[in-house]
Amino acid sequence: MQAEIITIGDEILIGQIVDTNSAYIGKTLNSIGVSVYQITSIQDDKQHILKALAEAEVNADIIILTGGLGPTKDDITKHTICDYFNYVLVRDAAVTKNIQRIWNDFIKKPIQQMNLDQALVPSKAKVLMNLVGSAPGIWIEKGEKVFISMPGVPFEMKALMQEEVLPKLKIKYKRPFIKHKTFLTYGMGESVLATIIEDWEDNLPNNIKLAYLPNLGKVRLRLSGKGFDEKALDNDIEKQVEALLPLIKDVFTGFEEDGDLEVLIAKQLTNQNKTLSIAESCTGGKLAETFTQHSGASTYFKGGIVTYATQTKIDVLGVSEEIINKYSVVSAQVAEAMATQCVKLYNTDFAIATTGNAGPTKGDEKAGVGTVYIALATKKDVFSQKFELGNNRTRVINKAVNKALELLQKEIFKN
Amino acid sequence: MQAEIITIGDEILIGQIVDTNSAYIGKTLNSIGVSVYQITSIQDDKQHILKALAEAEVNADIIILTGGLGPTKDDITKHTICDYFNYVLVRDAAVTKNIQRIWNDFIKKPIQQMNLDQALVPSKAKVLMNLVGSAPGIWIEKGEKVFISMPGVPFEMKALMQEEVLPKLKIKYKRPFIKHKTFLTYGMGESVLATIIEDWEDNLPNNIKLAYLPNLGKVRLRLSGKGFDEKALDNDIEKQVEALLPLIKDVFTGFEEDGDLEVLIAKQLTNQNKTLSIAESCTGGKLAETFTQHSGASTYFKGGIVTYATQTKIDVLGVSEEIINKYSVVSAQVAEAMATQCVKLYNTDFAIATTGNAGPTKGDEKAGVGTVYIALATKKDVFSQKFELGNNRTRVINKAVNKALELLQKEIFKN
Repeated sequence: MQAEIITIGDEILIGQIVDTNSAYIGKTLNSIGVSVYQITSIQDDKQHILKALAEAEVNADIIILTGGLGPTKDDITKHTICDYFNYVLVRDAAVTKNIQRIWNDFIKKPIQQMNLDQALVPSKAKVLMNLVGSAPGIWIEKGEKVFISMPGVPFEMKALMQEEVLPKLKIKYKRPFIKHKTFLTYGMGESVLATIIEDWEDNLPNNIKLAYLPNLGKVRLRLSGKGFDEKALDNDIEKQVEALLPLIKDVFTGFEEDGDLEVLIAKQLTNQNKTLSIAESCTGGKLAETFTQHSGASTYFKGGIVTYATQTKIDVLGVSEEIINKYSVVSAQVAEAMATQCVKLYNTDFAIATTGNAGPTKGDEKAGVGTVYIALATKKDVFSQKFELGNNRTRVINKAVNKALELLQKEIFKN
Repeated sequence: MQAEIITIGDEILIGQIVDTNSAYIGKTLNSIGVSVYQITSIQDDKQHILKALAEAEVNADIIILTGGLGPTKDDITKHTICDYFNYVLVRDAAVTKNIQRIWNDFIKKPIQQMNLDQALVPSKAKVLMNLVGSAPGIWIEKGEKVFISMPGVPFEMKALMQEEVLPKLKIKYKRPFIKHKTFLTYGMGESVLATIIEDWEDNLPNNIKLAYLPNLGKVRLRLSGKGFDEKALDNDIEKQVEALLPLIKDVFTGFEEDGDLEVLIAKQLTNQNKTLSIAESCTGGKLAETFTQHSGASTYFKGGIVTYATQTKIDVLGVSEEIINKYSVVSAQVAEAMATQCVKLYNTDFAIATTGNAGPTKGDEKAGVGTVYIALATKKDVFSQKFELGNNRTRVINKAVNKALELLQKEIFKN
């Protein structure tokens, strides 16, 4: 059972947008046992689309297209599909109704003919009703194969995947189970890791595959397996998990499938009925945002302060000017004072503080680019740690956020 | 002059990572006049890589591969390239030296044989020296075509593109100029826009292409052109810009190529020598992070407060409890009080405040999911605006950030 994803749009090829749709489609297909053979991003060009369709039909059982279904002249996917299958466009009454409903209820402006024309669908195609947009999805079966076309707007595509595509694929095809288990490790290069686990890796059974995913001081080790007997597959993977864990226990921080680190922390804080606040300098709001992007944050996260200018560390957060003058603004003492003040101001059980120089210029700070101090305070205690995080601004900020999460995780999981 | 990008890695196909490399490569190739014909993401599988190489050689002049160059067993790109070209792996002395330098200067741990073996490169390939990682890039010419292989770690790939690939491509090929000009519009659907600009669009010259990119209440209109005479091309595009602008002036907010909205605002604030602070509730730090992700933020951004819990709006920001009780926490009055207090606390020229319900649950707030108030305060004045931003948490937060940026832009550009 193989799928090919074809994303259509010049904006992808010129790098104007990052194609996030494919990752979403790949992940959700995997979750129902469908493997993705290939992702192909192509131009809004009839010949190119026809060529991609023909090649995908050879490679895959399920061909999923996104993009090019809008109402404007640059949208040619629908017409090209008609050419490919020798279909014509016919007006669909249910889609017309759906479009009129969206215009009446939400857009509340006069409807245009070109919007109504989005109800034109390839004859013999099944319509996948798009309840959140005017471009319907299209489902065309050809022998044992199926061609699916969806709009490229991410939230419309996601709704169609969940409501229409996945349920229909589940009915149509007998699918194996695909399981992944990803070990998050920290602080050891992939080559050292590989040496440590070499014997284990060499003896992996044929149905379990290992992949190394290194990035920014972290290496993810992913075990992947496929099989029709779910229980046996789970057992096979679990056996390898138990064999691998002791080998990497010093650098293991968790399983990716359990959720992002901030999600694990959020769960733990919620369970412990503990609260968190954050004082940020070099991370500039990103640490707070890392938590608040997830729903339920208000249960444990009371708030944060971004003290970007030094004076605001004094005026708003109440860090003593003396400490700043004595130790400089990027120092363990200032980080600890920020965290301690934050606990007091927000009256929380934990506070995290970051102060550092994210670069790219050294500015008038004594600390070099990449030097970051992270402090963690409780109502009784405070400690901090110094990090050297390189000289690329984005990476320094991202690494500092990761380090802060790790410090916090260690602290709350020991309680 | 066409390129094909091949990204290798099961992690892309299973949706474990989003492929950001392709967008970066596409954009930088465009900047030197190279069009991307297709992006193909494939598995870590020898036969699949060989097939993709063969197809790309037919389609494109420049074939760029990323991924699969690490030291571990799942990395097979280098071996497969040898198979494709009938080369063998030979040890490169300069790469060996580079790897030893990296280990001595940065890793400071014993070097492994598998790291040293990253100096094995396909015979007859030119090495593209990777100064920030141990996997070298590879450059292989075959007739007029060139095959380039780079590691998949984004910052290593980017360094190689800038230092090696782009300069070498510029020398090897005569390239046209590719120019894009993207109009950012707000508040009008693409179908209405299309109707308004229909006559103009129908009369576009053949060398200028128009694309509609709708997303979250915004539509981007991109003009793209290609030609060997840069001045003529610039003129052609400029002529169309001048013709289009008056038609869309009510919804036009700027050109994407001038940078992101926060970058424009940052420039303007810096030029005006004005300062900014931010008080966030529902946006949870994302607005502050939007500014601080860019270097130079410390020039105008003094800091921000995330008052997630209602009590912290009172305790930390100093919003009066009376106002909150009278109007509820998601209200114009509270947004305005937050902004006013923020101006005072941080002593800035402008402060932006957000309060709203990002969902997904209504919680104990009176406001429905998606209701957001955004206020803008100066030292003398404050005003706010109410928005209904739908019921998806991520989209509510992102739209609120966009709205806040637009309010701020309007305010500072009128000065």
